Amino acid sequence: MKSLVVEPLTADTIPTDQIRVSRDDIDIRSGECRVAVRRAGICGTDLQILEGYAGFAGVPGHEFVGTVETAPLGDRHWLGQRVVGEIDVGCGDCDWCRSETANHCPGRTVLGIVGRAGAFASHLSLPAANFHAVPDAISDEAAVLVEPTAAACEILIQVDIGPRARVAVVGDGRMALLVGQVLRTTGASVTLLGKHDRKLRVAKNLGLTVGRSSDDIPTSSFDVTVDVTGRPAGLTRAMELVRPRGTVVMKSTFHGETPVTLWPAIVDEITLVGSRCGPFADAIALLSSGRVETAPLLAATYALEDFEAAFTAARSDLKVMLRP
Amino acid sequence: MKSLVVEPLTADTIPTDQIRVSRDDIDIRSGECRVAVRRAGICGTDLQILEGYAGFAGVPGHEFVGTVETAPLGDRHWLGQRVVGEIDVGCGDCDWCRSETANHCPGRTVLGIVGRAGAFASHLSLPAANFHAVPDAISDEAAVLVEPTAAACEILIQVDIGPRARVAVVGDGRMALLVGQVLRTTGASVTLLGKHDRKLRVAKNLGLTVGRSSDDIPTSSFDVTVDVTGRPAGLTRAMELVRPRGTVVMKSTFHGETPVTLWPAIVDEITLVGSRCGPFADAIALLSSGRVETAPLLAATYALEDFEAAFTAARSDLKVMLRP
Repeated sequence: MKSLVVEPLTADTIPTDQIRVSRDDIDIRSGECRVAVRRAGICGTDLQILEGYAGFAGVPGHEFVGTVETAPLGDRHWLGQRVVGEIDVGCGDCDWCRSETANHCPGRTVLGIVGRAGAFASHLSLPAANFHAVPDAISDEAAVLVEPTAAACEILIQVDIGPRARVAVVGDGRMALLVGQVLRTTGASVTLLGKHDRKLRVAKNLGLTVGRSSDDIPTSSFDVTVDVTGRPAGLTRAMELVRPRGTVVMKSTFHGETPVTLWPAIVDEITLVGSRCGPFADAIALLSSGRVETAPLLAATYALEDFEAAFTAARSDLKVMLRP
Repeated sequence: MKSLVVEPLTADTIPTDQIRVSRDDIDIRSGECRVAVRRAGICGTDLQILEGYAGFAGVPGHEFVGTVETAPLGDRHWLGQRVVGEIDVGCGDCDWCRSETANHCPGRTVLGIVGRAGAFASHLSLPAANFHAVPDAISDEAAVLVEPTAAACEILIQVDIGPRARVAVVGDGRMALLVGQVLRTTGASVTLLGKHDRKLRVAKNLGLTVGRSSDDIPTSSFDVTVDVTGRPAGLTRAMELVRPRGTVVMKSTFHGETPVTLWPAIVDEITLVGSRCGPFADAIALLSSGRVETAPLLAATYALEDFEAAFTAARSDLKVMLRP
């Protein structure tokens, strides 16, 4: 077994110094399954974790596809299956776990983010309840994107977007390209606003309407805007472009305090919606049918040992994957 | 005629130096009515205007009750009536004006806030379409509070608050006391969290459940929280206290940039709703029936000429009114 381990960040640490490859055995928790990781994706949250977000130390990574190697009695039908996994593991006993979803269980662990070793490893531990089987139509590379595609689908549960809606996605990174494609399935007019020629070309080739976020776009041009930039300026731009009584979806987590000019949101009665994990089944359906394409989003795949090059590429490129 | 006039704020101005009493005639716009102001209320927005908010110069004031003195043909039935008035005057021609409401017309003027002389005057000009007749059951002092009570009622249109909801109002000022009473009409459990003994006593006497905002309250204690503090710290507190997937209503406008820690709103999928003007008819019904009480909120009434004392009182006290 091998894994990438992030040491606790201290005042003296340079982020890349604090990562190492470990050969230690990975702990398979009682009642959970051992999964051999086939591919893992690097996401903006992983990059923020290296900068101290969520105070996480241990094995990062939460986007993966793998093969189930061991399973407790009752879950044996998963053995040998190719799976993706939901990242939140609830306590199983609170109101959230018993009703709506474990995603908001206050005592939850989160794969590679909170209190649980993640997917940048040869193996990981997850309960079978978190698994979704991956159909043959979905490649390993595409399967890694089930988790972020599900997060994009969450927007459709939270916000009513009809075919007449004017939607802007602010950002042109991998997540923006998924959000743009997912929101387009509503029939809405979706414009992706970015600033990187190469990424905007990918968006255009995916059939999305594109523009530059710095373009002189009239305020109030959109009913719904989604900030997927990972930067405070993106949220400000999303707020500028939405119409009065419109909705701004906040899909990026920012570490620390964000200076925001809030009074226009109050005067214009804007709704800001925080949006996180979403429905895996919906994402699998969209990827299987080809309504959401992932091949143009793939930048490169690196061996686990080449993590430095992988993280460097992930800071500026589209989807970078690790192969353990 | 007389009015309070705010001069444009310059780098050298001390806010109180920039206000003066004018004896100039007030301009009654074509097609509008002349209203003799009986009472006007000082609101947080007025105090912010003195600090440069919205770049307003002219006659401030937007909460008022008055008597209609002149009206164009077709609106003559308003003559002599005691009225309150909606504060937004739309262009009459845009999508907003033709459908939903003039409140969000991009070309609107706003009484005492944007491009239109306000209510801190002996007379003001408004179109009859903005008027609501004041029933005898509502005193002049209570009628001044129709506008902020309507703003509180707006929350009920924007957010679904049922009788089982746990609601916190963060703040204990005049607006908080109105919001608390209005939200209580849903049957929800409403707790008002403040920091001023005297104001919390008023809230308690109004039958509201009260607490100190600094109390050690578990996070996620409320389904809906409303920030009515007018301070960034209030918004932060409202975000801390709401449960995952709960709603934070932003009722305070802050001038300038607000530093906010936004990532918990994304992880917890919180919805933030900006809330402004609301339905006057609903407010009049609540005030007429006594379900919203205003007498305990009244601090003092000053002559227009005593504006300095009035503004000083309004900075720390409950509702302060001007009598022209």
